[in-house]
Amino acid sequence: MALQAHYLIISYLHVQMSGPNKAPFSGVAEDLKGRAACYKQDWNHGFRSGLRILAPTLYIFFASAVPVIAFGEQLSKDTDGTLTTVETLASTAICGIIHSIIGGQPLLIVGVAEPTIIMYTYIYNFAKNQPNLGEKMFLPWAAWVCIWTAVMLFLMAMFNVAAILNRFTRFSGELFGMLITVLFMQEAIKGMFGEFSAPEGNDQSQPIFQFQWLYVNGLLGLIFSMGVLYTSLASRSARSSLYGTGWQRSLIADYGVPLMVILWTALSYSLPSKIPSGVPRRLFTPLPWEPKSLQHWTVAKDLFSVPPAHIFLAIVPAAMVAGLYFFDHSVASQMAQQKEFHLKNPSAYHYDILILSLTTLICGLLGIPPSNGVLPQSPMHTRSLAVLKRQLLRKKMVQTAKEGMMNNATSSEVYGKMQDVFIKMDHGGDSVSAHKDLKDLKDAIIPEGNGAGTVPEVFDPEKHVDAYLPVRVNEQRVSNLLQSLLIAGCIGITPLIQRIPTSVLWGYFAYMSIDSLPGNQFWERIQLLFITPQRRYKVLEGAHASFMESVPFNTICAFTLFQLIYLLIVFGMTWIPVAGILFPLLFFFLIVIRQHLIPKYFDLSHLRELDAAEYEELEGFTPDPSVCEDESVRSRDAQPGYASEILEEFTTHRGELKRRNSSFRDGRLLQLNSVKMTRELSRAPSRRELSRAPSQIPRIMEQ
Amino acid sequence: MALQAHYLIISYLHVQMSGPNKAPFSGVAEDLKGRAACYKQDWNHGFRSGLRILAPTLYIFFASAVPVIAFGEQLSKDTDGTLTTVETLASTAICGIIHSIIGGQPLLIVGVAEPTIIMYTYIYNFAKNQPNLGEKMFLPWAAWVCIWTAVMLFLMAMFNVAAILNRFTRFSGELFGMLITVLFMQEAIKGMFGEFSAPEGNDQSQPIFQFQWLYVNGLLGLIFSMGVLYTSLASRSARSSLYGTGWQRSLIADYGVPLMVILWTALSYSLPSKIPSGVPRRLFTPLPWEPKSLQHWTVAKDLFSVPPAHIFLAIVPAAMVAGLYFFDHSVASQMAQQKEFHLKNPSAYHYDILILSLTTLICGLLGIPPSNGVLPQSPMHTRSLAVLKRQLLRKKMVQTAKEGMMNNATSSEVYGKMQDVFIKMDHGGDSVSAHKDLKDLKDAIIPEGNGAGTVPEVFDPEKHVDAYLPVRVNEQRVSNLLQSLLIAGCIGITPLIQRIPTSVLWGYFAYMSIDSLPGNQFWERIQLLFITPQRRYKVLEGAHASFMESVPFNTICAFTLFQLIYLLIVFGMTWIPVAGILFPLLFFFLIVIRQHLIPKYFDLSHLRELDAAEYEELEGFTPDPSVCEDESVRSRDAQPGYASEILEEFTTHRGELKRRNSSFRDGRLLQLNSVKMTRELSRAPSRRELSRAPSQIPRIMEQ
Repeated sequence: MALQAHYLIISYLHVQMSGPNKAPFSGVAEDLKGRAACYKQDWNHGFRSGLRILAPTLYIFFASAVPVIAFGEQLSKDTDGTLTTVETLASTAICGIIHSIIGGQPLLIVGVAEPTIIMYTYIYNFAKNQPNLGEKMFLPWAAWVCIWTAVMLFLMAMFNVAAILNRFTRFSGELFGMLITVLFMQEAIKGMFGEFSAPEGNDQSQPIFQFQWLYVNGLLGLIFSMGVLYTSLASRSARSSLYGTGWQRSLIADYGVPLMVILWTALSYSLPSKIPSGVPRRLFTPLPWEPKSLQHWTVAKDLFSVPPAHIFLAIVPAAMVAGLYFFDHSVASQMAQQKEFHLKNPSAYHYDILILSLTTLICGLLGIPPSNGVLPQSPMHTRSLAVLKRQLLRKKMVQTAKEGMMNNATSSEVYGKMQDVFIKMDHGGDSVSAHKDLKDLKDAIIPEGNGAGTVPEVFDPEKHVDAYLPVRVNEQRVSNLLQSLLIAGCIGITPLIQRIPTSVLWGYFAYMSIDSLPGNQFWERIQLLFITPQRRYKVLEGAHASFMESVPFNTICAFTLFQLIYLLIVFGMTWIPVAGILFPLLFFFLIVIRQHLIPKYFDLSHLRELDAAEYEELEGFTPDPSVCEDESVRSRDAQPGYASEILEEFTTHRGELKRRNSSFRDGRLLQLNSVKMTRELSRAPSRRELSRAPSQIPRIMEQ
Repeated sequence: MALQAHYLIISYLHVQMSGPNKAPFSGVAEDLKGRAACYKQDWNHGFRSGLRILAPTLYIFFASAVPVIAFGEQLSKDTDGTLTTVETLASTAICGIIHSIIGGQPLLIVGVAEPTIIMYTYIYNFAKNQPNLGEKMFLPWAAWVCIWTAVMLFLMAMFNVAAILNRFTRFSGELFGMLITVLFMQEAIKGMFGEFSAPEGNDQSQPIFQFQWLYVNGLLGLIFSMGVLYTSLASRSARSSLYGTGWQRSLIADYGVPLMVILWTALSYSLPSKIPSGVPRRLFTPLPWEPKSLQHWTVAKDLFSVPPAHIFLAIVPAAMVAGLYFFDHSVASQMAQQKEFHLKNPSAYHYDILILSLTTLICGLLGIPPSNGVLPQSPMHTRSLAVLKRQLLRKKMVQTAKEGMMNNATSSEVYGKMQDVFIKMDHGGDSVSAHKDLKDLKDAIIPEGNGAGTVPEVFDPEKHVDAYLPVRVNEQRVSNLLQSLLIAGCIGITPLIQRIPTSVLWGYFAYMSIDSLPGNQFWERIQLLFITPQRRYKVLEGAHASFMESVPFNTICAFTLFQLIYLLIVFGMTWIPVAGILFPLLFFFLIVIRQHLIPKYFDLSHLRELDAAEYEELEGFTPDPSVCEDESVRSRDAQPGYASEILEEFTTHRGELKRRNSSFRDGRLLQLNSVKMTRELSRAPSRRELSRAPSQIPRIMEQ
C-alpha cells in the first residue's frame, strides 16, 4: 500500500547487481530460471494442503477486497463516476490471476492502491480541462499513460534497475508512508464533511437534499464512520482478548475490518422507516452489466483518436507512475520475503517488474486502472501461510513424537524421527539447517546425556512442539489464484456492495490512516517532539529504538523537523491542480538530498542510527537476553490458534517484523532497572559507558 | 455514592461496642470529646495552609457539583419537575455547610446521591397516585418521611448501632455497588432513547417535535453522550500521559469530567443556525427566583394537611431511607479515614449519624431532598489533602536538608533536623512513630556507620524526600466549608447550568456506571465466568487476588452466580411500581443470608478469601517482596505534580486503596515466573502447595 522502502537494503540484489550480471535481461533470466525450477511444486504444495488452504485464501481475499472497494469509491468520487468499484475490482482480479499464474513470486499480492488513485485523479482532472480531450477522451488518454508506463517498466526490467532500490532508505520510505497516511486521513475528513452537503452534479431540489435530511445524513455519517473506525481499531486486539474461544478471537482478529463493514452496513438498515430512502447515502457504482460500465471496455479502439501531442504528453505522468509502481511493487515483494520467514524459493524482482509491465498494458487497453504489489496484504499473505505450514508441521511432528513415546523409544530415536519428518516436510531443507533450527526442541527431548534413556516425563509433545517449532511458510500459488478469483466474483455481487453506506468507507479510510502509523519511526519521532523533557524517561522505560539513547535529542529533533517540513511541502504540492502530478519527483529528489546534502549536516554515526532499516534497528539496552527472551513464557498455550498469535506478536500491523518486541513483553523489570541506572548515570555523563557493562547487571538484579 | 460496605470490618467500632460502652449516647459523647479536642486546630490548620487550600477545595467542588447537577436532572425527570437541580444543589450546600461546621469528621463530604433519588422517585410515584395526596401533597408527605428518618437516625446514634456495620460484608456491599452501577447505566440508556421522542407533558405539535428534528435531537444526543463518555474515560489516564506539562496533565486528570461537560456543552453551541432552538434538548430547571422554585420552601406549613394515616405510612419509606443513609454515611466516612492515610484525629461515626439526623430533618422541612455522605468524593477529599500536606512537608524538609548540607553538617545532624521539622509539622506525631516512618529517608542520608561523616554525595534532597516521605493528611474544616459555599454559589448560576444538553448528562451517567466497576471484585468474578478456561492463566499473569489461586474455580463460579441471580432479583424488584420501595429490605435480608445460609454451602476458608475486605485481600503469589516493592523505581521523578501521581497509583478510581498494585507495576517478570510455576504445578495438584514454598524461589530466579 505504501512505499515503505526502508526494508530495502536488499543485500541480495546489491550483491547481484555489483557482480558481472549487467547484461540486459540477465536479472530476468536468472529469476525465470529460479522460479521455473519450483513452478510445479508451487501448485502441488497448494493442492496438497487440501481445504486448509481456504483459511489464508479467505483471509487475504477480505484484506484485499475492502480497500479495493474503498479505493473504487474514492476514484468514483474523483472521476465523477467514470471509473468505479467495478473497475478497481476487475483490475485487481485480472492482474491477480495473471500474476498468480505466470508471476515470479506467488506470495506477492497485487491490487489497485492509493498511488494509482492519486495519479488517475490528476490524469482525469487534466483531461477534463483539455479542449482536445475532455471527459470522453480521459480513458483513451489514460490508456496511453499505461502504455508508456509499460514501456518504462519493461526497460527497467531489461536493464536490471532494481539495484537502485537500496538508495531509497527508510528516511524517504517513511516520509512517503506518512504522506499516504495524511492523504488517507484527508480523504476520510473530506468524505465525512461531504455527507453534510449534497453531492455535486445532483438535483439539489430533491427532498433528501433539504437541510434537515442532509443534516441527518451527516450525523449518521459521523456515527457510522466513527463506529467503523473505533470497532475496527478495537478488533485488532481481539486475538489477545481474554474472552471467547480461540476461533472466535481469531475470526475477529483476522476478519475484524470486513466484519465491521458488514456490521455497520447492517446497522444502517435498522433505521426508522420515516427516514427517506437515500439517507444514509450509499455507495455509488453502476452495475457491471449496465451500459455505463460496459462502454469503456472498448477503449482500445479510441486510442488513436487522442491527438498526437497528447499521446507524447502522456509520457510525463507515465514516468511518475512507472517510478511509483517500480518502488511499490518491489517493496511489497521484499516485505513478503523477509528473511525471518525462512523462505525456500528464490525471489524474482526483475521478472515481476516485467509481468507488471504486461498487466499495466492490459489494464490500460481495457480502460481500467492498473494494479501493483500492495502492502500490507503481501506480508499478511506470507504470514498466514506460515500459520498454515505451522499447523501442518505441528500435527505430523506431534503424532511422530507420540508414536515414539508409546513404543518406549529412546529419546534420541524419538528426536531422530521428528527431525526426519521436519526435513521431509520442509522442502529444500537439509539436516544441517534442520539440526540448527530444531536445537531447542532437541534440548527439550534430550535434556542431558546421549539420549539413550526414554523421553523425560516433563516433555509434552503438544506443548513443546508448539513452543520450539521454527517458522516455515507454505509457498505455493493456489491461495493467490483463489483469492483473485474471489475478487473477480465480487464484481457479480455489486448489488450487495452498493448497500454499503459511503460513511462506512470514510471510517475505513481513517482506520487505514491510523493503522499505518505504528512501526513508522518518523511518526514516533514526531510524537517525541511533543513529549516534555521530564517525561522522556518514560519512553526509555518502554520498548524503544537505540537511537533514543545514542543520538542527542537536538539531532533527532533537527532530523525530524526537516522530514516534517519536507512532508508539508509534498503535501502542499499534491494540492496544486495540474503540476501536482509531479509530486513523485520530490521523492526521487529526496534520494539525492539524502545522499549528498544530509550527510553534510548530520554526523554519520547518528545518521546510521536514525536511518537504519527497521530490521537493522537496535533494541534499547536490555542487559540479559537469556532472561528477556524467555521463550517458554510465550509458548505455554498449546491451542491451535496460538500459532497465529505468536506470529502476530512478531509483526506490526503492517506486516513488518518487530525488533523491539521481547524487551517489552518479558523484560519489564530489567527495563525498569536499566532505565533507573541509565537515569542515574546520565547525571554523570562520563560514567555513561558503564550502563552497558555486563558486570553491573548482577548488582542491579540483587537490589 | 455507593454502599461499598466491604471496607467496614471496622475493628475500632467492634472493640468499642463489645466493651462496656453500651449506655445510650456513650458513642456520641466519646466522639464529641475526641473531636472537641481538635476543633480549634481543624480551623487553624486550614487557614494556615493559605491559598494552597484552594486546590483541594476546587477539586472536591467540581467532583461534587457535576453529579449533584446530574442527579437533579434525573430527579426532575422522575418527579415531573417538582424537584430539580436547584433543590439538589441547595440540599448539598446547606448540609455541607452544617456538616463542615458542626459535623464530626470534616473529611467526610455530603451530597444528594443516587439512593435519595431512587427513594424520592418511589415516594413521588406513590403520592401522585394517592387521591388523598396527589402531586400537590408530595413534598409535605416527603417531609414526614424525612421526619421519621431523622427520628430513626437519632435512635441509631443514641443506641450506638454502628456495631452492626461489620455484619455487612464485601459480599453485600459489592452487590449493592453493582446495583447502583446497573441503575446508572439504565438511566443513561433510558435518557439516550428518550432523546429520540418528545418529552411527556409537552405540546406534541411544536415544530421541534416533528420527526426529523426529534431524530436530529436523538442523533446529536447519541454523539454528545458517547463523546462525554469516551473523553471522560480517556481523561482518567491523563496523569500518566507522555504529553503536556505537569500542570496540564494534572488539570485534565483532576478536572477531566467537569472539563468534558463544559467542552461538549460548548460544542453544542457550534451547530448550524438552521437547526431550530430546542435542539439539542437542554437541562430543564426553573430559575431559583422563579415562583415555581420558591413555593416549596414553605412546605413546613402544609405538614398537617397530610392525612394522619399517611403520616404513619411514611414510616415505611423512612425505615428504608434510614437504613440506606446509615450505611452510606458510615461507609463514606470510613473510606475517608482508611488507615493508610495515617490520620491523627479521631473518627466520629455515632456523632455524625446524629448530625445526619439533624440535616435530614432540616431538608425535609425545607422541601428539598436530604444529603448524606458520598462516595467517591469523601476519599477523594482525603487524598487531595494528603497531596497538599505532602507539598508543604516536602518544601520544608528539602529546605532543611539543603541548609544542613550547605553548612557541611554531619549526616546525623542533617537527619536530626529533618526529623524535628517532620515531627513539628506532623501534629500529634511523636519521635517514635516519626523514626519508624522516616526510616527509609534516614537510610538514604546515613547509609552506614554512625552518621559522623557528611551526607553522601548521591543523596539528592529533592529526589529522596519525595521518594521516602510518608503519607500525611492536612486535616481541617476549611476546604469542606469552602466547597459547600461554592456549591451554594452554583444556585446563582442556574442560567448557565440550563445550557448543558441533557444528553451530556446521560453520557455522564454512563461514565459513572463504568467508572464504578474497577476494584469491584464481584465484577471481576463476573468477567471471569466468561473467560475460556485456556485463557485463565492470563488473569494469573496480571494483578490478581489470592482467591484466584486458593479457591477452586467451581466454587468461585457458584458464589458469583448466586450473587448475580440475587442482583437480578433486586434489580427486578426496583421495577415493581409501589412495592419496589422495599428493595433495601433485600439487602438487610442479605446480611442474614450471608451469616446463616451461605456458610452451609461454602467452605469457610474459601468464604474468607472470597469475602475478604479489600484491604485484607491478599495479593496473588509474589515470591520476593523486596524486589517487587522497589519503591525507588516509583519515585524517580521529582516534579511537584508527582505527589498526586503516586497517591493516584495507590488508589482506585473510587478511592479505595489498591492492594494489588505493586505486583502489577514492578513484579511483572516475577509474576510471569510464578505463574509459569503455578501452571506447571497445577498439572500435578498434589504438588500444589509447593508453589508457595520459599525454598523454590531461588531456583525460579535462576531459570
